[in-house]
Amino acid sequence: MRTAMEAAQFDALVLRLPENVLLLSGFWPMIGASFLVFPLDGKPVCIIPDCYRAEALSALRSVQPIFFPYGLVDSPPPNNAIRKLLSGLSGATSWRRIGYEASFEAIAPSWNSAESLVPAAGTVSLLQSAFPKSLLVDASDLIKKERRTKTEYEILRLEIASEISAIGLEAFQHAVDVGKTGVELAADVEREIMVRGTGYRGTVRVRAYAQVTVGPEETSLGYRPNVISTTQRLQRGEIALLELGLVADGYWADRTRARVAGTPSELQQAYFDTVVRAQEASIAVIKPGIAASAVDTAARSIIESAGYTDFFPHITGHGLGFGYHESSPILGPRSEDVLEAGMLTSVEPGVYDRSFGGIRIEDDVLVTSSGSRILGPYLKSLA
Amino acid sequence: MRTAMEAAQFDALVLRLPENVLLLSGFWPMIGASFLVFPLDGKPVCIIPDCYRAEALSALRSVQPIFFPYGLVDSPPPNNAIRKLLSGLSGATSWRRIGYEASFEAIAPSWNSAESLVPAAGTVSLLQSAFPKSLLVDASDLIKKERRTKTEYEILRLEIASEISAIGLEAFQHAVDVGKTGVELAADVEREIMVRGTGYRGTVRVRAYAQVTVGPEETSLGYRPNVISTTQRLQRGEIALLELGLVADGYWADRTRARVAGTPSELQQAYFDTVVRAQEASIAVIKPGIAASAVDTAARSIIESAGYTDFFPHITGHGLGFGYHESSPILGPRSEDVLEAGMLTSVEPGVYDRSFGGIRIEDDVLVTSSGSRILGPYLKSLA
Repeated sequence: MRTAMEAAQFDALVLRLPENVLLLSGFWPMIGASFLVFPLDGKPVCIIPDCYRAEALSALRSVQPIFFPYGLVDSPPPNNAIRKLLSGLSGATSWRRIGYEASFEAIAPSWNSAESLVPAAGTVSLLQSAFPKSLLVDASDLIKKERRTKTEYEILRLEIASEISAIGLEAFQHAVDVGKTGVELAADVEREIMVRGTGYRGTVRVRAYAQVTVGPEETSLGYRPNVISTTQRLQRGEIALLELGLVADGYWADRTRARVAGTPSELQQAYFDTVVRAQEASIAVIKPGIAASAVDTAARSIIESAGYTDFFPHITGHGLGFGYHESSPILGPRSEDVLEAGMLTSVEPGVYDRSFGGIRIEDDVLVTSSGSRILGPYLKSLA
Repeated sequence: MRTAMEAAQFDALVLRLPENVLLLSGFWPMIGASFLVFPLDGKPVCIIPDCYRAEALSALRSVQPIFFPYGLVDSPPPNNAIRKLLSGLSGATSWRRIGYEASFEAIAPSWNSAESLVPAAGTVSLLQSAFPKSLLVDASDLIKKERRTKTEYEILRLEIASEISAIGLEAFQHAVDVGKTGVELAADVEREIMVRGTGYRGTVRVRAYAQVTVGPEETSLGYRPNVISTTQRLQRGEIALLELGLVADGYWADRTRARVAGTPSELQQAYFDTVVRAQEASIAVIKPGIAASAVDTAARSIIESAGYTDFFPHITGHGLGFGYHESSPILGPRSEDVLEAGMLTSVEPGVYDRSFGGIRIEDDVLVTSSGSRILGPYLKSLA
């Protein structure tokens, strides 16, 4: 990051999105009330509400914490405290260009996703008054690039998140049954992940976001963001489709499985087998240097040769890690991304049609130096 | 809103936060990919990803929808489509000042809160290129003011959200037991709300965010945002404290209850009774024209005269409705807000100490023309 900052002539970054504070400090703040100052020279500083003292001290890596009173009846307005601390930082008066997160429009929430604090006009005004002689410049591209390839430590944490997502896939497998509604299945998966995932390999904050569509009408649109869990009941022989996003201490997993209540029809099984083959073909070609579009082609050509050309309307995958979706790599026909070791991508081909419903399988695949590795592998089975 | 726009010389507003699109159109978009154009003159227009067609058509009130292709492998980049649609709007070339949501830093997520789209630099650049001759101006204050007092329709929807939150309070009451962990209790509450709340009085998208602290150490800090549900187990005679945020089709509720596993001690019961009296005293003085600080005093003086002065470290309440927290009214000692009919506020006094733990009771109270009304009332009982 410092190399990139030097090339882009940034003297410091000031970040408040929890996902980016995590990236550069190891500490995943709740809400967004913490600020990370990451200078080109010298030790980074994290300005943190005092209620997070214990957690921050155990998580921060090579970052100096500064705490301020927060959220009590006698606490001064937080922005006053933050402004004062920022403007008093050693070396701050010599920073000509300060980078901030001006272009992050897709926000990864913290564990309590009911409310996120984002860097809008108030943050810009706060930074400008703390650093009156500095120029504030959008550093989003720099940060997004830094997020694209994962370090060994990040891979370990992402592996833990994926293993917890497998707990959710197992819960889904057990829960699917005739008569269950989509909201029941989604709630069962979310509950199991919170209960069994919290504490798994030392995780502290785990939350899942499940969407379960049931039956041919819903699952045939089960790749669209508008199609969420409803109170419709699963009938015998119908498909239930789980789309699962999950965060474990700031690191994300994104999985999908399909299950039939009862015995799958021959047609359902044929579609499923094709999707499995398509996913395996994509994963098989993943390695450093390959075009992301070629990974998409590997899946798409199998679905097309099975005669299901019109049934696969979405891309094969997308980057993730510090959020549910990241903008690089994109595994799609028009993608210009080239895979690099350390990238993490979903691989999620699917087929959808009103006649039988929708089937998608999704796993998170790490690009390794020699090829690829599925994080938190889990059974793929329709029944 | 149009009166306020005229006074502030806005020719149009362009909004993308789901909470504000809901406010001015009746449609609660998922994710944040829809744009509402609300002109001073003429019919509002909502630009919407085509996958939300059915939902938007049934929800929009006096707003013209325009749909664009979204999220499929062949969809053009959404910002291109949106830019074209915006710049072609009737009358747009004559708009001198266009308002947008520059100062919303606390974001209410949509149902799938795993990812929210917010108006950052990309949105500003999009709007500037769609309206090259217009001045973009922050309209956040205008919108926040419009959100402060609720219409009859909004009150109905907020009442439904609060009634669903009572389902969660009931689930909590039944779930609290010796040996349960905080994450189990939180997950139980969230599950019940999703399963039984979805479909309640016609709701479609319901999601809860629960935090349950257990035992004296956790609950004595159970008013701090960092203290979340853990794997610690509730012991006999200990308190479990539920903090519950909930969204039902875009409208929020915020509740708290405390329960003891087994029989409360006399001391616990005395603290609880004081908190109940404090909450009732606050609610009793709520009416249009009263200072919000006086509502805080009503609760605080009861807690103080019981000798618990140091045990109530937070404010008595805050506005809510289109988000988990809203900035007005604030029921606190230094608040300068004055209550108006149609405001909705939480009323949530509490007492906290390491010796016994923490107890808080929270309900959402509507300011009516003659006084106040609790939305979704529910039993207050420690055991």
